[in-house]
Amino acid sequence: MAASSSVNAARALAGFAVSSHGPPSGAAHSDRLTLPAGAFALSSLSSRSFSSSHRFLRQAHPASRRAAASAPIRAAAVETLEATVTEAFVEKSINTIRFLSIDAVEKANSGHPGLPMGCAPMGHILYDEVMRYNPKNPYWFNRDRFVLSAGHGCMLQYSLLHLAGYDSVQIEDLQQFRQWGSRTPGHPENFETTGIEVTTGPLGQGIANAVGLALAERHLAARFNKPDNEIVDHYTYVILGDGCQMEGISNEVCSLAGHWGLGKLIAFYDDNHISIDGDTEIAFTEDVSARFEALGWHTIWVKNGNTGYDEIRAAIKEAKAVTDKPTLIKVTTTIGYGSPNKANSYSVHGSALGPKEVDATRQNLGWPYEPFHVPEDVKKHWSRHVPEGAALEAEWNAKFVEYEKKYQDDAAELKSIISGELPAGWEKALPTYTTESPADATRNLSQQNLNALAKVLPGLLGGSADLASSNMTLLKMFGDFQKGTPEERNVRFGVREHGMGAICNGIALHSPGLLPYCATFFVFTDYMRAAIRISALCEAGVIYVMTHDSIGLGEDGPTHQPIEHLISFRAMPNILMLRPADGNETAGAYKVAVLNRKRPSILALSRQKLSQLAGTSIEGVEKGGYIISDNSSGDKPDLILIGTGSELEIAAKAAEELRKEGKTVRVVSLVSWELFEEQTDEYKESVFPAAVTSRISIEAGATLGWQKYVGSKGKAIGIDRFGASAPAGKIYKEFGLTAENVIAAAKSL
Amino acid sequence: MAASSSVNAARALAGFAVSSHGPPSGAAHSDRLTLPAGAFALSSLSSRSFSSSHRFLRQAHPASRRAAASAPIRAAAVETLEATVTEAFVEKSINTIRFLSIDAVEKANSGHPGLPMGCAPMGHILYDEVMRYNPKNPYWFNRDRFVLSAGHGCMLQYSLLHLAGYDSVQIEDLQQFRQWGSRTPGHPENFETTGIEVTTGPLGQGIANAVGLALAERHLAARFNKPDNEIVDHYTYVILGDGCQMEGISNEVCSLAGHWGLGKLIAFYDDNHISIDGDTEIAFTEDVSARFEALGWHTIWVKNGNTGYDEIRAAIKEAKAVTDKPTLIKVTTTIGYGSPNKANSYSVHGSALGPKEVDATRQNLGWPYEPFHVPEDVKKHWSRHVPEGAALEAEWNAKFVEYEKKYQDDAAELKSIISGELPAGWEKALPTYTTESPADATRNLSQQNLNALAKVLPGLLGGSADLASSNMTLLKMFGDFQKGTPEERNVRFGVREHGMGAICNGIALHSPGLLPYCATFFVFTDYMRAAIRISALCEAGVIYVMTHDSIGLGEDGPTHQPIEHLISFRAMPNILMLRPADGNETAGAYKVAVLNRKRPSILALSRQKLSQLAGTSIEGVEKGGYIISDNSSGDKPDLILIGTGSELEIAAKAAEELRKEGKTVRVVSLVSWELFEEQTDEYKESVFPAAVTSRISIEAGATLGWQKYVGSKGKAIGIDRFGASAPAGKIYKEFGLTAENVIAAAKSL
Repeated sequence: MAASSSVNAARALAGFAVSSHGPPSGAAHSDRLTLPAGAFALSSLSSRSFSSSHRFLRQAHPASRRAAASAPIRAAAVETLEATVTEAFVEKSINTIRFLSIDAVEKANSGHPGLPMGCAPMGHILYDEVMRYNPKNPYWFNRDRFVLSAGHGCMLQYSLLHLAGYDSVQIEDLQQFRQWGSRTPGHPENFETTGIEVTTGPLGQGIANAVGLALAERHLAARFNKPDNEIVDHYTYVILGDGCQMEGISNEVCSLAGHWGLGKLIAFYDDNHISIDGDTEIAFTEDVSARFEALGWHTIWVKNGNTGYDEIRAAIKEAKAVTDKPTLIKVTTTIGYGSPNKANSYSVHGSALGPKEVDATRQNLGWPYEPFHVPEDVKKHWSRHVPEGAALEAEWNAKFVEYEKKYQDDAAELKSIISGELPAGWEKALPTYTTESPADATRNLSQQNLNALAKVLPGLLGGSADLASSNMTLLKMFGDFQKGTPEERNVRFGVREHGMGAICNGIALHSPGLLPYCATFFVFTDYMRAAIRISALCEAGVIYVMTHDSIGLGEDGPTHQPIEHLISFRAMPNILMLRPADGNETAGAYKVAVLNRKRPSILALSRQKLSQLAGTSIEGVEKGGYIISDNSSGDKPDLILIGTGSELEIAAKAAEELRKEGKTVRVVSLVSWELFEEQTDEYKESVFPAAVTSRISIEAGATLGWQKYVGSKGKAIGIDRFGASAPAGKIYKEFGLTAENVIAAAKSL
Repeated sequence: MAASSSVNAARALAGFAVSSHGPPSGAAHSDRLTLPAGAFALSSLSSRSFSSSHRFLRQAHPASRRAAASAPIRAAAVETLEATVTEAFVEKSINTIRFLSIDAVEKANSGHPGLPMGCAPMGHILYDEVMRYNPKNPYWFNRDRFVLSAGHGCMLQYSLLHLAGYDSVQIEDLQQFRQWGSRTPGHPENFETTGIEVTTGPLGQGIANAVGLALAERHLAARFNKPDNEIVDHYTYVILGDGCQMEGISNEVCSLAGHWGLGKLIAFYDDNHISIDGDTEIAFTEDVSARFEALGWHTIWVKNGNTGYDEIRAAIKEAKAVTDKPTLIKVTTTIGYGSPNKANSYSVHGSALGPKEVDATRQNLGWPYEPFHVPEDVKKHWSRHVPEGAALEAEWNAKFVEYEKKYQDDAAELKSIISGELPAGWEKALPTYTTESPADATRNLSQQNLNALAKVLPGLLGGSADLASSNMTLLKMFGDFQKGTPEERNVRFGVREHGMGAICNGIALHSPGLLPYCATFFVFTDYMRAAIRISALCEAGVIYVMTHDSIGLGEDGPTHQPIEHLISFRAMPNILMLRPADGNETAGAYKVAVLNRKRPSILALSRQKLSQLAGTSIEGVEKGGYIISDNSSGDKPDLILIGTGSELEIAAKAAEELRKEGKTVRVVSLVSWELFEEQTDEYKESVFPAAVTSRISIEAGATLGWQKYVGSKGKAIGIDRFGASAPAGKIYKEFGLTAENVIAAAKSL
């Protein structure tokens, strides 16, 4: 293909027919291209005035507009190229990305230059030619999303954000790569760097997050778009590498993406044949594209990802044309492209090139500049993204004004989802219970809460890993989110816990008002722990509905019975581990979970029926630990019994017996250790007076960690072995989780 | 196909040409078949006498023997069928399996009847016609392995083990299904029921274990087989369901199985279109067979898995004929086959049918018997597996005698692998260090240990999830285990942590003397936690080499820095969490790990260099916690400083400073909490005298749990937030993990 065709391709991508002012498509062989005059005027307008004039332009061509809307290609609404963009200039821009990455890794003497060097062409084309975003408002709702699933290559993304004009990544930030307190940490972190959508690095998480982002777009588009106003309309782009492809999670989520037909998900597979241990031949010889076809994806192979810019552009165009399937673009690249001695080897993957090789690479690619230098023409070229991004957002804002006028209720819902502002009084929907309410499993009580909340929280959606009828997670007023019914809210994840968690992270980070929940048996958090940890780290307020939370599940046996799981999450930073004991506590747990939008919550719920206890409350749960009963006067009971979840009623029962014998006993529900630790010292002392050292905890889980509350003189009753297969009551008895055993322990203290 | 051909197929599978005494292949249409007279004589011989006569028989046909050896079909060496085996009889046997399963679930009122009812034909054909095993010695080394990856269907396997004559599953055991203390727990557990190879239930684990079993076979066969004596030669069969297929782990391991070309792995995919949430259409519409082809598998589709016995037999024959690829046999079945009202629905998946439907099913399948009845002819038919199994083993034993005579050294190695007996004096290979030895990262010290041990432990093999050069796990004297070099011992797992762990479980459970190790960054135990938990539960002594064990890894940042991981494994039952501080402790950790063959070990190892400390020792590590230095007289130091791993040297340094100021300070290394807890109370008191309440712990991880050792008056220095991206030294300082901070804390106590 002639060089100029690249620009034609880029323009076609941008959703424009090639203007009659330019050379006819495919005819001209000049390597310069004059773009329509109108395109230039735009950047000289303020975004507001642009917005209206642009709307006028669009309205002036209703037929072509409609055609564009129904046509497979929908992309940037504005022409984005400067007057003269040659292939040589594109290469210069790409080399700028390469050397910013090389220089930053070199300065830090730490990092991964190989991927940015190989993927710079994809990066350039995406951020400079294809994607719609507003650098000065990285949170603009309708932006295209980009995820670097191969997060170790983050210098690629930092370089692109810098060139595109994001305030978060100044040249000084690039120079502080991987340093204490910098905005350019060792892997992309959405909570450190605006412009980064999700937190990646652990391989496979990013592609899963991207599936979540694309799911969110499809769901919201189906719910809110109108024939005359497609208010939700963006793409999700991903770059993933061999490492991501090998991880099981990526197969899980890509199977789902294919099943759901997420046509606006476009994944670039950086096929560079190198992983840390060397050539991928040693461990990865499957036919990836054939696998993706089996998963229901459209696949394209770009054979020359190093310099075949037009191939990349054409692939994106083709991907956009396929609207009913996600697309995998396998892009064969050379890791460390440009490095004469280290390219195509693992040595360029995860280490600085070293000064000598950096020099050699500069020479090889003809790069005469100092480290961290961005040539003026490159700077100027990229600078248009600031006004154009503002224009894109302004145009969308105007569109939203129209939308709001015509579709008030929908607009209000969408606004709540975009802003994250919860509807006033939502918490009134939470059910309450009295001791007269029937005993019930907290998994059932959880379903009552979920269904009550779904009525008032427009952003609540989620589902289970093929255990909906066991986890009790179906929203009864909604159908299934499926290819043909994406407006519905029950998501069927299949038996894919890991993918489920990471997809929910993507949903949560799509819009502040989306509240994803997901469910499986508590023990199977082991399958999804990496995703849960990322929820905690990236501040995604996912609600984890984890039923069958102890040996109380009975006959399924030790493979299904969690033991160490409660403590393992209590020790994880920035996550709430909640184990409610009855109806009021389950409602309290949901209140906490919904309010904590930047901290995920795990609700551990029982399979078995539990009594509705006296003294439990939503307010109590919000404090994490509180007294549910105490027959002492003053603040000095003989004994404090502490329980959580299904064992709180055992503690209450034991207390009742001990009180009959004349003891003063306090019963404390310690439903969330994290929330309790956040209370004032005064409050904590009021619950656990230092002077009362006779303390017994009872919980159907590991005792390790309980020493913190029972102290050196207390006793923790729990389970420090694997479970067993038998009816639940029998196991409780055999394992000593009984009121009798609590009473005996109390007497021994 | 005519009914009789089924038996021909079965006989062909068993490696015999159809005898001239029987009807010519494909010609007869009688539904009865007379087998060669010689086949009957066998069961009347004692296994020893049979063995020799059989050997004679084999030797008498050297040409056909050779042909059989090189031909793709290698299966049962003895003819196994009774005089008259009709299709109707096979169906009766299959229905016996179905009703034993139905009845057991019904009696327990808990369990999963659907799979056993649908998979009974596969089960029958495998255990009755195809597999080579010895019911009276379930541990016979050269047995075919069977794994029920869809472990919830365990009644299938229990029924088969019962019919085949395993002592572990008597009729009373079936009647005690899922009850306290029974040998028939809710999911298959190798540690409860002999004859069960691995522990399944958590979906996808079984197929991964099976890949490990097949890897072990292939490795040992390549190492030990001789042209004249194929001493290692068995198949690995698996049944997996839709749930297993959806889990990412199964894609990971099947990609590896294809890469390795594990031709003797034959997986039956129970394609029944039903999972717990209903039709698999709602979440699982990929083309599974196409995916497996992309993974390098041979695939076959048995369209009628319910009654197409010949189709199943032919598929197995075809699978065996493909020796360079594993085979997936997709068997389309009806879940709950035979139940007139519940078949083909999720309701039959995980609940008892209920008395009414059991009656209807009895009527439907023409089963007039009482619950738990095994018809006499079925019993008689299956009874031959006891003598035949004994004969198979005896034959193999004789073969081993020959082998031993000819290949003494190999035989000794193989014996050690089969028996699990460690070579005498192996521990002398462990390296030792003095304070003069150079400071080094424990990951490097780990590599010294691994390489030293590989010389003396014939069963040591393993590798890393694409981090060999970071985890330092390469065995330098060996090459890579690959398709063309399966005799080598460095396994390249690719970026597939979860699959890696579960494959290692399979390797460990293949033979007691196989010592698999596997490696990744410690934080990525999150990816493989479900497999690690199964190691602990199923008593597989896998060695987990987990490097980069704290913020000490530096610039990669919080996604890569473990925080809560140490405590999360300390709380897990039956696993050893070891965090060595230097060379001697690393050697100690390996000694412990090698000796604990029924308990996995996790070694948390540093990326950064650590000093060789005074006072550390292998013996100390074996006690879990011990004093490395103390300047007090008597047993009453002013202060106890406790450290693990990389923080032990900080504790030692702080102690030195404090001692200069006149304090008496004890420094304790608490390298393994589990081992320490197993010591006598006296020993524990000698390390942590109750009277000394001034205690400070320092560890670069969560503080939760440390209250157990520092007590109410002590202080735990650690990290209760996520890490950060910066050079390691900087993070240590910023997070207060310094000798200065320990000293300040000491002064504040």
